Amino acid sequence: MRYEAVRFNNGSVELLDSRKLPLVETYVKCRTPKDIFLAISEMKVRGAPAIGIAGAFGVYLGAARSKAKTVSGLKRDIKKVSDLLASSRPTARNLFWALERMRRVYEMSPAKTADALVKDLLRESIKILDEDRDICRMIGRNGAELIKKGARVLTHCNAGALATGGDGTALGVIFNSRKKIKMVYADETRPLLQGARLTVWELEKRKIRHTLICDNAAASLMARKKVDLVVVGADRIAANGDTANKIGTYGLAVCARHHGIPFYVAAPVSTFDISVKDGSGIPIEERSQEEVRRIGGDLITLPGTPAMNPAFDVTPAGLITAIVTERGIIRNPGKRNIQRMLSLK
Amino acid sequence: MRYEAVRFNNGSVELLDSRKLPLVETYVKCRTPKDIFLAISEMKVRGAPAIGIAGAFGVYLGAARSKAKTVSGLKRDIKKVSDLLASSRPTARNLFWALERMRRVYEMSPAKTADALVKDLLRESIKILDEDRDICRMIGRNGAELIKKGARVLTHCNAGALATGGDGTALGVIFNSRKKIKMVYADETRPLLQGARLTVWELEKRKIRHTLICDNAAASLMARKKVDLVVVGADRIAANGDTANKIGTYGLAVCARHHGIPFYVAAPVSTFDISVKDGSGIPIEERSQEEVRRIGGDLITLPGTPAMNPAFDVTPAGLITAIVTERGIIRNPGKRNIQRMLSLK
Repeated sequence: MRYEAVRFNNGSVELLDSRKLPLVETYVKCRTPKDIFLAISEMKVRGAPAIGIAGAFGVYLGAARSKAKTVSGLKRDIKKVSDLLASSRPTARNLFWALERMRRVYEMSPAKTADALVKDLLRESIKILDEDRDICRMIGRNGAELIKKGARVLTHCNAGALATGGDGTALGVIFNSRKKIKMVYADETRPLLQGARLTVWELEKRKIRHTLICDNAAASLMARKKVDLVVVGADRIAANGDTANKIGTYGLAVCARHHGIPFYVAAPVSTFDISVKDGSGIPIEERSQEEVRRIGGDLITLPGTPAMNPAFDVTPAGLITAIVTERGIIRNPGKRNIQRMLSLK
Repeated sequence: MRYEAVRFNNGSVELLDSRKLPLVETYVKCRTPKDIFLAISEMKVRGAPAIGIAGAFGVYLGAARSKAKTVSGLKRDIKKVSDLLASSRPTARNLFWALERMRRVYEMSPAKTADALVKDLLRESIKILDEDRDICRMIGRNGAELIKKGARVLTHCNAGALATGGDGTALGVIFNSRKKIKMVYADETRPLLQGARLTVWELEKRKIRHTLICDNAAASLMARKKVDLVVVGADRIAANGDTANKIGTYGLAVCARHHGIPFYVAAPVSTFDISVKDGSGIPIEERSQEEVRRIGGDLITLPGTPAMNPAFDVTPAGLITAIVTERGIIRNPGKRNIQRMLSLK
């Protein structure tokens, strides 16, 4: 039953290959920053917090493999590695947050030897991973007050253990309140089917009652009064609370509002990007059209059909009932309430 | 380029097998009512008007193959065939409407011989097909005033020539106004991907600029001001204008309203079911869970994952800007405006 999106094992970084789930459960070993870069961009590892953790380990791997003999030579190499990793995916804030934490270590480290600096970077990567485990636990606990007994919960994409270093953000809330939850509806989440492949797999592993639906059935479920609340993760949250998350999240939020259903976002504070004023400033990754034209390798339309494949959309803060973080719940998320929570320690 | 969902050729009924499109273009010959029953329930032929036409031909095939020597014996056989066909799919009104037209022929026919009655039934089937061709043309013409120059149109599922005896309902409007249309966004329409497979194929055949999107990208396109109007078909419209159509339609209508985008339904008057007061009275077909768990035969989730697969949803009349019929446009569709249009000849 134990599974982890990212683990450090015997000197190498191992990622549970999310592209192969749910039918094959296999870890890919990453030995170089390039391995990590590809694993992130090809979405073997995905989910904002997990991407951040993988990115941090990528910096460590780059340092460990550097041939530089001096600390300053090593720092130059690490900088290049960090730039490469930053170009793997543009939207998830946690990647840049983790790279920034690693940068602080290698720029400010008092280490006198390259070896000592490599050790510092490994220590920081492991710390980021361990912290995320605790953060998920706190998000789960904080979210508990939002879940009433008998709740039927709709979630989109995968914001579970496969997306984090711990039990997940949105799924962290669900797992923590499992005894109160009557049903989890999992959107399949085209194009890459993270709901059908990953969320269903996690819910099955943990024996939580669930039902898979096509994305476009969610509104009708709401109209039939089968959904009590929606909870999703986040890839980046602007200073005003506008939230980028997997494509389809925004439409769910619009429909939830139309039906008077609470719409919650669960995310660590590392997801906030206060340098971005509102959602219009969040870069939205446009992925390959082939992901829309194909499912599992098979063509589902005419070859070469023009397609659009925005990986994320932005849900305005006004449609979000609350954001659950490890520090507490931000109700009516807006600039002021967010600032107040972020200034807490 | 010529293609037809249903055609009568050399004594047999031929259906363009929509399950095999867009990669294989092949007609299946139907020689028995059972063939037609299976083609409808397995969705080789689909789309409310095309289902109606196929159903009518099914009644004819049943009559032609009956061994009854007397008119009354033949009528008994036809009745059984009609009951079988009526059980193929529950939602599309046009099926029941077409079976009712056939019933009027076999119950009221002055035919003195079984042979003469069979001929009457063939004549009526062909008439239903021919009429639908004209109806589509009129829907296309009537819809023209809703399309402004440079329009970017979103459509869901397939309401084209593959769903009718003519050029289609929603796509009929698009084809008729093709010179004014800048872009058609086609929702892929999970689970059976009628948008990706059929709508894209029709738009490509007719050289109309189009872009395929995953269903859950529609709301984000609207937010980015890339959609000027939505037009969809219908499977059944209640007396008050509530409209059953392919699952996902309702969520689009909610999002269109949220963004102030007009939402149009295009359908022949045979789609109205005034015996049903409102949407709550429309039977919604729940199809096999396997259609959700698989795409093109391949499992996309764990085997046996519980799934829901409602084939349709109901859009309340209040979210529909207008319904385009062959008789004209019903704006602000509601009981009164609908009755007025239906009473026209």
